[in-house]
Amino acid sequence: MITINKERLLKEFHEQGAIGWIDGEGLFRPSYSKEYYRARDFVKEKMEEAGLSTHVDSVGNLFGKLEGAQKRNRTILLGSHLDSVNGGGYYDGALGIMGGLEAIRGIKEEGIQPRHSLEVAAFIAEEGSNLGGTFGSRSFIGEFENYPQEDILKGYGLNRNIIEKAKIDKNNYAAFFELHVEQGPVLWKEKVSVGIPTHIVGITRYLVTIFGESNHAGTTPMQNRKDALFEGSKIIYKWLDFMRKQSGIVGNVGVLNLFPGEIGVVPGKMEIRFEIRSDNKDKVNLSVGKIYELSKDLIDCKAVIELWNEKDSVAMDESIIQHIENACRQYGFSYKRMLSWASHDANPIARVIPTGMIFVPSCRGLSHSKEEFSEDDDIVKGVQVLANAIVDLDMKI
Amino acid sequence: MITINKERLLKEFHEQGAIGWIDGEGLFRPSYSKEYYRARDFVKEKMEEAGLSTHVDSVGNLFGKLEGAQKRNRTILLGSHLDSVNGGGYYDGALGIMGGLEAIRGIKEEGIQPRHSLEVAAFIAEEGSNLGGTFGSRSFIGEFENYPQEDILKGYGLNRNIIEKAKIDKNNYAAFFELHVEQGPVLWKEKVSVGIPTHIVGITRYLVTIFGESNHAGTTPMQNRKDALFEGSKIIYKWLDFMRKQSGIVGNVGVLNLFPGEIGVVPGKMEIRFEIRSDNKDKVNLSVGKIYELSKDLIDCKAVIELWNEKDSVAMDESIIQHIENACRQYGFSYKRMLSWASHDANPIARVIPTGMIFVPSCRGLSHSKEEFSEDDDIVKGVQVLANAIVDLDMKI
Repeated sequence: MITINKERLLKEFHEQGAIGWIDGEGLFRPSYSKEYYRARDFVKEKMEEAGLSTHVDSVGNLFGKLEGAQKRNRTILLGSHLDSVNGGGYYDGALGIMGGLEAIRGIKEEGIQPRHSLEVAAFIAEEGSNLGGTFGSRSFIGEFENYPQEDILKGYGLNRNIIEKAKIDKNNYAAFFELHVEQGPVLWKEKVSVGIPTHIVGITRYLVTIFGESNHAGTTPMQNRKDALFEGSKIIYKWLDFMRKQSGIVGNVGVLNLFPGEIGVVPGKMEIRFEIRSDNKDKVNLSVGKIYELSKDLIDCKAVIELWNEKDSVAMDESIIQHIENACRQYGFSYKRMLSWASHDANPIARVIPTGMIFVPSCRGLSHSKEEFSEDDDIVKGVQVLANAIVDLDMKI
Repeated sequence: MITINKERLLKEFHEQGAIGWIDGEGLFRPSYSKEYYRARDFVKEKMEEAGLSTHVDSVGNLFGKLEGAQKRNRTILLGSHLDSVNGGGYYDGALGIMGGLEAIRGIKEEGIQPRHSLEVAAFIAEEGSNLGGTFGSRSFIGEFENYPQEDILKGYGLNRNIIEKAKIDKNNYAAFFELHVEQGPVLWKEKVSVGIPTHIVGITRYLVTIFGESNHAGTTPMQNRKDALFEGSKIIYKWLDFMRKQSGIVGNVGVLNLFPGEIGVVPGKMEIRFEIRSDNKDKVNLSVGKIYELSKDLIDCKAVIELWNEKDSVAMDESIIQHIENACRQYGFSYKRMLSWASHDANPIARVIPTGMIFVPSCRGLSHSKEEFSEDDDIVKGVQVLANAIVDLDMKI
């Protein structure tokens, strides 16, 4: 069993959290910002102190590598992202990087010479931006459905050629481990130490536009109105009510637009953006079907339904899951298999490299919030599990 | 019975409608704009051609006056507003001015010497703007609940002193007649030629803010959400459904705000702006009560309800209504007493001068739209009724 240096881990973890932190406001460390580069320099220095050889790829991902003892080996990759949403916490992402670094140091200090290379990645631009989410890890695996527009890339000093230089050869990688805060309340509520995602849920987004008729809100009798909001509010209320009764799936309406949006005008048009997350296609289809059912045969208006965005769920690797479970059992930590309801760098990477995730509890389930917090003890447990799972895997492949 | 010159009326009416008109877009004649001044110059010229003495007051209202034969007389005022909403029609407002001018010309050409002065007003800034609605007519009667802020006034070259110079002595006025398009579908649907409002309805506006908790729309289980939109959409749907079953009252929700308004975040806050119009206080209270009833005891959220804005309904003068009815009967025009569901310059003016309104049918009830339209025949009928009602009143006071 690997012993890790708790004091060093926690000291450095909280130190990185100060870079870009504004008291009372939270963490402001968007990718390609001054704060981002300061945080990356901090991590790079710590990697080099630990004897890892570092490099930054063409899009800005940072890597620190410990060469494996075996001549022809495949890299075991650890890590997560270093950027934050504005006003977020400093656990989201950074934990997987600082934890990955400490796991490698723990292995070295235990006198273990891993057969395969161990590498920590600090990915850039995982959080949503006009580059799209998981930009760094998508560049790393070289799989883009849609490249961001040229003028957007130019704003970051990027172009398609530069991005394509970041692509690695997946055959050189044996596995990817991402240690991360859960960002939800399940582990915290159930007092479970470690969560092991089996899937990252898929995201399906629909845009429903309701067409009515804008009219004077005084002179138009109620029975003559074609009020897009009357129909729209009914659809939203009944759909959310339906979704609250489902399990294994969540649904949200986070964005609405009302036209013309004037106090004295009956709304003639309404746009509603629906989001559905699940690992289960049948459940997604049922929820989408409910949108269709509620939107048909409107009394006064017409609804147009469009699929806006769809990302399939992605499975974690069963063998890696078992290595993580073994590590939990060795320490006697409580653990459970679960779903990851948020997307992660593990999402694109799992499509080409066998991947596993380790979740630690988020207090009160809060995330993307300055109140995001995980107990020091839980952080340490997560890193211990990570270190042991790697050693376990390293010996078996 | 006064005969009016239909050809001249219609020719000049449609001519004014071209000033600020953009084909395919509608009328753009906001107050204090180049287009507005061009339209006012056009009307002023026509007033002077008709032998009226003109003046523009300190806020920009234009008046054209025919002096009464009687030495000590009180003015009978006709008119409406010359400004438009952007993309509106050219009937709203302008009809009362061009019709009022034609009525006076008709009376003169009939050889009648009115005992009292007849005056046509082209009011400025009736439509909603940052000056507030009915700004010109409110300045005219000198009654402001709240003056616009100094920096807003400055943008129009105005200040409080300038506005107060526009105030007239109400004792010099015997009556105000406002000829206007209905802006609703009642007369058009029922094939009635003339509508005679008994009241302009009051407007009551409430702001309801629902406080929930913003959270990740993936990782937060449905049963843990405090979704302001779930509660808000229920309130809106149930309230509009209730309002659709009422009579003598209308209700609208035209403005919504969702916070933070992001696709992947459960809405933590929602603002809903309710508008209620009626001439009946009990019905208003019932509708407001329904907002309170629906907003209390929310499962996951809290609602804060604020009265935002309230304008009482205002009664038209019964004796003037009867003069208008007499004129309709003389011509054999169908007419009906009704409510005005929109506000008008008659709204502030009726609070200090006996006031009546004459409505002509709006095709399909459309208004504040480039498709706003009234039949030439209906316009002519309205002006005939106006001219005869004035002569009738002039002899009786």
